[in-house]
Amino acid sequence: MKILGIDPGYAIIGYGIIDTEKPNMVIDYGAITTPKEQSLPQRLDAIDGSLKFLFEKYKPDVVAIEELFYFKNQKTVIQVAQARGVIILACQKYCGNIYEYTPLQIKQALTGHGRAEKAQIQYMVKAILNLPCIPKPDDAADALAVAICHSQTSPRLNMNRV
Amino acid sequence: MKILGIDPGYAIIGYGIIDTEKPNMVIDYGAITTPKEQSLPQRLDAIDGSLKFLFEKYKPDVVAIEELFYFKNQKTVIQVAQARGVIILACQKYCGNIYEYTPLQIKQALTGHGRAEKAQIQYMVKAILNLPCIPKPDDAADALAVAICHSQTSPRLNMNRV
Repeated sequence: MKILGIDPGYAIIGYGIIDTEKPNMVIDYGAITTPKEQSLPQRLDAIDGSLKFLFEKYKPDVVAIEELFYFKNQKTVIQVAQARGVIILACQKYCGNIYEYTPLQIKQALTGHGRAEKAQIQYMVKAILNLPCIPKPDDAADALAVAICHSQTSPRLNMNRV
Repeated sequence: MKILGIDPGYAIIGYGIIDTEKPNMVIDYGAITTPKEQSLPQRLDAIDGSLKFLFEKYKPDVVAIEELFYFKNQKTVIQVAQARGVIILACQKYCGNIYEYTPLQIKQALTGHGRAEKAQIQYMVKAILNLPCIPKPDDAADALAVAICHSQTSPRLNMNRV
């Protein structure tokens, strides 16, 4: 099963593609970035275009995406949520098989407890995927984490299907 | 100039199309609704499809959309912002000429003061467009209000371009 993990964002969107049938699983990871100089519509269009490219290149069977939670900054939550709407729509158009996970679920899946620090998650991503170093940027590591989370929990947690 | 006004939402999205070269301006108005029973990806896809239909049918020169502000309910703001991202992307793909207005700007444009009540705005929409009654649902009246706002303010406020 080929899983595309996504860490949603507006200026930077992490992605990570794993194949559960391959020994070390990882296929690719990285980040989509949208330049500050561009307008909101241009940046949303760029996100859509980059995702379309990823879906066409890797043809994932399923998408696992992190849920959006409380933010202190109302402006930030609106920007990220707007981008997340575009991301969900692209996943629906180009794949149609989408699962959401909370940060708590991701932490539990990777480390066994929900209060794990970011560094522990990153270490587990590196260990599980047998990578030579922690994936950079952080958004790509987070995206790989949600993909791993799906690979470990989907048989039990079909409720995460959206 | 043909203006598509949009009142963004998740369960209901108001739209109103006016043509500033026509005597009474109004061409059409209404609301796109997305059923509760459907999943988030399906509802976002339905919004995109309905907007595509409107753009193909009416070919507006410009889109005027209400800005999103503070909500008390964090869950609501995330849902509406996700839908608004999809709406902005559709406007970019099918038109490319987008302006945003705050509720304050819309109230000022229609009534001359920023603290106008909802009923006053609706009354002015009816009066300006010479309609037999106040447009229903409220979301359609709000969408017509933002379209009228653009028709009255765009020469002065190019800063509203997004």
